[in-house]
Amino acid sequence: MLEQLKDRVCHANLTLVEHGLVFQTWGNVSAIDRDNGLIVIKPSGVPYDRMTPESMVVVDLECRPIEAGLKPSVDTAIHAALYRAFPAIGGIAHTHSHYATCFAQACRPIPCLGTTHADYFHGDVPVAPVLAPADVATDYERHIGESLVFAVGGRSPLECPAVLAANHGPFTWGVTVEQAVENAIVLEEVARMAIHTFLLVPEGVGMPDYLLEKHFSRKHGKNKYYGQQEDVK
Amino acid sequence: MLEQLKDRVCHANLTLVEHGLVFQTWGNVSAIDRDNGLIVIKPSGVPYDRMTPESMVVVDLECRPIEAGLKPSVDTAIHAALYRAFPAIGGIAHTHSHYATCFAQACRPIPCLGTTHADYFHGDVPVAPVLAPADVATDYERHIGESLVFAVGGRSPLECPAVLAANHGPFTWGVTVEQAVENAIVLEEVARMAIHTFLLVPEGVGMPDYLLEKHFSRKHGKNKYYGQQEDVK
Amino acid sequence: MLEQLKDRVCHANLTLVEHGLVFQTWGNVSAIDRDNGLIVIKPSGVPYDRMTPESMVVVDLECRPIEAGLKPSVDTAIHAALYRAFPAIGGIAHTHSHYATCFAQACRPIPCLGTTHADYFHGDVPVAPVLAPADVATDYERHIGESLVFAVGGRSPLECPAVLAANHGPFTWGVTVEQAVENAIVLEEVARMAIHTFLLVPEGVGMPDYLLEKHFSRKHGKNKYYGQQEDVK
Amino acid sequence: MLEQLKDRVCHANLTLVEHGLVFQTWGNVSAIDRDNGLIVIKPSGVPYDRMTPESMVVVDLECRPIEAGLKPSVDTAIHAALYRAFPAIGGIAHTHSHYATCFAQACRPIPCLGTTHADYFHGDVPVAPVLAPADVATDYERHIGESLVFAVGGRSPLECPAVLAANHGPFTWGVTVEQAVENAIVLEEVARMAIHTFLLVPEGVGMPDYLLEKHFSRKHGKNKYYGQQEDVK
Repeated sequence: MLEQLKDRVCHANLTLVEHGLVFQTWGNVSAIDRDNGLIVIKPSGVPYDRMTPESMVVVDLECRPIEAGLKPSVDTAIHAALYRAFPAIGGIAHTHSHYATCFAQACRPIPCLGTTHADYFHGDVPVAPVLAPADVATDYERHIGESLVFAVGGRSPLECPAVLAANHGPFTWGVTVEQAVENAIVLEEVARMAIHTFLLVPEGVGMPDYLLEKHFSRKHGKNKYYGQQEDVK
Repeated sequence: MLEQLKDRVCHANLTLVEHGLVFQTWGNVSAIDRDNGLIVIKPSGVPYDRMTPESMVVVDLECRPIEAGLKPSVDTAIHAALYRAFPAIGGIAHTHSHYATCFAQACRPIPCLGTTHADYFHGDVPVAPVLAPADVATDYERHIGESLVFAVGGRSPLECPAVLAANHGPFTWGVTVEQAVENAIVLEEVARMAIHTFLLVPEGVGMPDYLLEKHFSRKHGKNKYYGQQEDVK
Repeated sequence: MLEQLKDRVCHANLTLVEHGLVFQTWGNVSAIDRDNGLIVIKPSGVPYDRMTPESMVVVDLECRPIEAGLKPSVDTAIHAALYRAFPAIGGIAHTHSHYATCFAQACRPIPCLGTTHADYFHGDVPVAPVLAPADVATDYERHIGESLVFAVGGRSPLECPAVLAANHGPFTWGVTVEQAVENAIVLEEVARMAIHTFLLVPEGVGMPDYLLEKHFSRKHGKNKYYGQQEDVK
Repeated sequence: MLEQLKDRVCHANLTLVEHGLVFQTWGNVSAIDRDNGLIVIKPSGVPYDRMTPESMVVVDLECRPIEAGLKPSVDTAIHAALYRAFPAIGGIAHTHSHYATCFAQACRPIPCLGTTHADYFHGDVPVAPVLAPADVATDYERHIGESLVFAVGGRSPLECPAVLAANHGPFTWGVTVEQAVENAIVLEEVARMAIHTFLLVPEGVGMPDYLLEKHFSRKHGKNKYYGQQEDVK
């Protein structure tokens, strides 16, 4: 079932490897078929070089397995919590990308320091709150997912398509699984630039709000003028 | 039209990818045919792996399209402003190269800290001033171009072949489009060395002026003695 | 003799090269056959590109050669000391991996700053004490080995499968030689993340103990739920 | 003439490219034939991808060309000054390797912070003094060479086989041109580790002298015991 989506999710997982955002068996990508509320996700602990579309696992929004096969990623309940909270998103990527994970380990948000950041993320990339002992003890992964939703707060999940799990690492999403992966790739470069910019100006310079608005809306707003007409692409 | 120049501009854009100075659809390179005042530039938002000489776009110095085809880079008006101000230059490169962009995000010029820098850039690589809200609201890209010209100030554009757009990233140029790309490649290494030198000496040591003059003139001056005779190369 | 183990040890040594953890003739990996107390180890000063399973050297737990062949690694006595002290381990890797070696040069332990660390190392990665002059003068390598054992202290060597030799570099181990190498690979990323996290929060934030326990036990404890059932893998 | 030496010098130059220690047309390697006092060196400003053994240039110890061909490296007089001062050396490498050049730009010596450094360099890698204006104006390159000799001071050039030219970059040497290149490769890693160690301990921890002696002599001393017998290699 869901063969096409399994292909895309498998390919998306392997794209993370190509870009150096995961290694060992770390990280995981999923996509959701909104018509029937089914999630396709990477299996747990399978090395990337043995991963095929057939290895992908199908679960429902309560993380119940839908067909016989491998165990889904231990982080499945994180993905499910995000899909339940954000109906607009269709794919999620969790990486261990180096610099974004450093921000997560430092429990610091990634501030918007330049136009590259503003082209993709409408303001800071927030850090979710550290979980309380009880939330780690029971339903740990679901509680991480809820902490990510909490961190997005009143913002649209498509204007804030990335959150850092405290002490852990980044989660990104998008309308499609391909967008989720693109946001993961860009997030890593944005995080790396922020750390190195701090070497030059310890707290960063920040960027005028009107410049942030200009860049985000030039690519994503109603009057966007970046790129070709859709039919030309 | 301008098939040869389209070939060179396409190749120059792909050279940026090879050197890791751009990714996604970021960055853009152009060249100008001074005889008829026409600019050849990368199209907007087209992935590098699908780019061919035929994708290149021709516009005039007022950014008006000259033949049917793709939309030019959103940054075309930046390039045009530079070509209008600096008749000596024939090519321009805009990258998102990591360390040079960090200096741009920090709004700090790149000081001349060593002979590698002095071999290519005659003194600091300046940062253009941050644009006022009105200049971002209307004709944003033209105003960026004008801010870059302003930052060059009284210097010759060939002795100052690189400027950082504030909060944004580097622009480099040269007599040819190939020189513009070479300057972009070297600028990135110079910026990376400056940041890491700051880890050793927070404000840098600077270099005696007479050493800077020696190195720049050894490669570019009237009595240069670096390299082979032109006809030997 | 021990042909299969020589194959595995040779392959393990070459895996370090692939992952960029050693170069020149640096670093060394060994494994032990516990049934007869024999160690298989890399020869001294042989370039990796000329290394074959036949180059591997067999010694006993007192470092005495068991068959004619090349000289074993100069660090053999370090490995032997670890095998004598820790009956649970089956393989050891010594690398010159960049960031872990920086911690060794700084004589600083690598603190647990995030879940990636906690997935593999149950708390700090300790630094062994600096050796006294007499311990450097005689039986230098054996004394290094004993300093590593000392640094593990009361912890289980499988919960503390890495120690930094002061001013020198990292040693890792595991139940198998493959685990020793995996721990060396992960240690390097963990060290690199710790250094870059310090750029954001000078002393690090640390991670709640209950989160550390959760992650280590999720992968290694009695009730671990990471990965597939062993028979599915 | 000197075809064999030209082969080795060409190969040595290309090895620097493979290891990422030079790019563009930067850097240069030479070797000397002590029997007739002739130096074989890289030509000036020729791209590495067009370099062949035939491109190599032969000069005498006063930098006079010995056969028709390309112009030698602009840095030839630096090499000649080193060969005149140090009869024990047979090859010299000048790179623009990133981290070693940062130390040169900072005018800071590279201290011995660990055993990797001590395995190759018997103590600090010194920085040559900044040249006076008159020494830059006339015979610039010869004066650089003499400043490097000055920086070695009373030490043996084989115990101090690397010096940083102030504001410029590293020069390394050895008994053979292959050793000069090996020292350049190791110097870069040693410099990179020193900068990152400073992030952990701002002034570095230093290493006990008796440990430095142990490591240098374990590889280079009369009673060295690293590596195989020469005839086994």
